Amino acid sequence: MRVASPKALIFDVFGTVVDWRNGVASACADLFSAREIDFSPLAFADLWRAEYQPAMERIRSGNRGYVRLDVLHRENLDIVLAKTGLENRIEDAERDALNHAWERLPPWPDTVEGLGLLKADHLLAPCSNGSIALMARLARFAGLPWDSILGADIAGNYKPDPQVYIASVAALGLRPDEVMMVAAHNDDLFAARECGLMTAFVCRPNEYGPEQKTDLAAESDWDLIAESMTGLAGLLKH
Amino acid sequence: MRVASPKALIFDVFGTVVDWRNGVASACADLFSAREIDFSPLAFADLWRAEYQPAMERIRSGNRGYVRLDVLHRENLDIVLAKTGLENRIEDAERDALNHAWERLPPWPDTVEGLGLLKADHLLAPCSNGSIALMARLARFAGLPWDSILGADIAGNYKPDPQVYIASVAALGLRPDEVMMVAAHNDDLFAARECGLMTAFVCRPNEYGPEQKTDLAAESDWDLIAESMTGLAGLLKH
Repeated sequence: MRVASPKALIFDVFGTVVDWRNGVASACADLFSAREIDFSPLAFADLWRAEYQPAMERIRSGNRGYVRLDVLHRENLDIVLAKTGLENRIEDAERDALNHAWERLPPWPDTVEGLGLLKADHLLAPCSNGSIALMARLARFAGLPWDSILGADIAGNYKPDPQVYIASVAALGLRPDEVMMVAAHNDDLFAARECGLMTAFVCRPNEYGPEQKTDLAAESDWDLIAESMTGLAGLLKH
Repeated sequence: MRVASPKALIFDVFGTVVDWRNGVASACADLFSAREIDFSPLAFADLWRAEYQPAMERIRSGNRGYVRLDVLHRENLDIVLAKTGLENRIEDAERDALNHAWERLPPWPDTVEGLGLLKADHLLAPCSNGSIALMARLARFAGLPWDSILGADIAGNYKPDPQVYIASVAALGLRPDEVMMVAAHNDDLFAARECGLMTAFVCRPNEYGPEQKTDLAAESDWDLIAESMTGLAGLLKH
């Protein structure tokens, strides 16, 4: 694969850079254990994540003004607790604490080394639907060497709305064709390409666990296709 | 001095964290030498900086929509070249290159060690009038360990407009009284205090050179008053 060298790389984070499923499940496991709740933490994490797109869609569609993902996560937690019949088992303060699980997600094993390699030659920033507040704390927890935090908060909207990619590129003072979007999700890359960005697919076949059905392979001729962040760094060196 | 421990520190950058005057003068000296221009680089840096407040004031007053500081710096460079009679000596491409001098400013000698100490216990972010594009590149050049970049670009306006402090605090998911503004400029701290932030004055008596007349001392009972960034870190440890 040959590609013009991007000046900056911007990243999807949940699933691409960090393992949200096991991170959230781990926090749920601690709480459920303390409260003697018999519910699968991984199943709970999946249910919580399932409310993610519908909540953002209300904002993307214009039915609700922009609110940060931290707020949506907290609202979605209430929804999932009600759906699972656990609403009387978890106090408000515990819910607030559990909501911070999204700030303490483990990086994939190749993430920190890969970002370190990539940082030598490129500006690096998340272009995530997570807020600046969330992404800044997550970066400290996971050791992510971002140069700035871009994404939803910069744009006041959620991916895949084009404004999120456009505002993130503009914030770096670059043209879209100077920036590469890195994601484990084909739909994210289709949207970024539509805005004129270069694209890199990093395959994360276990993001949704062993039963994952989506995004198991590149669905287009993305500029780069890699199996890991270190692999991506290798491709960009050549 | 006693102060509640802030969760985040946000910083003025030009003058407080980095030495804009010697940094810009150094870039000017290189160019003037190559072009055999006999003009004091320090005097030119001072003239360039003198256009800073008037340019921002047109935006703060509502007479012009928000444009990034990079654009204002470039416009101001043209103004100063005309005022100094050098407009026919420096090509457009050289002006564009010189404008990047603001991304390559040396930190004060205590800055990097001080920020490193402060980062252990606090979120750190610039709350500067510099753009994300400018601040991200400056951070790489000077080794500034920011957790994110906040300030004018987040707010779409320039300090001391209250919105810049308010938007920066909100982006961190914190209340104003959980955040401390750090600046070498009393007027910056007056504006931040008005928004409910804690305040720290770090004295930089040579920002404008040996003839500096302003900001030689704290002009109010700021929550903390320090002689250096390492000194500030010491005060926050106690």
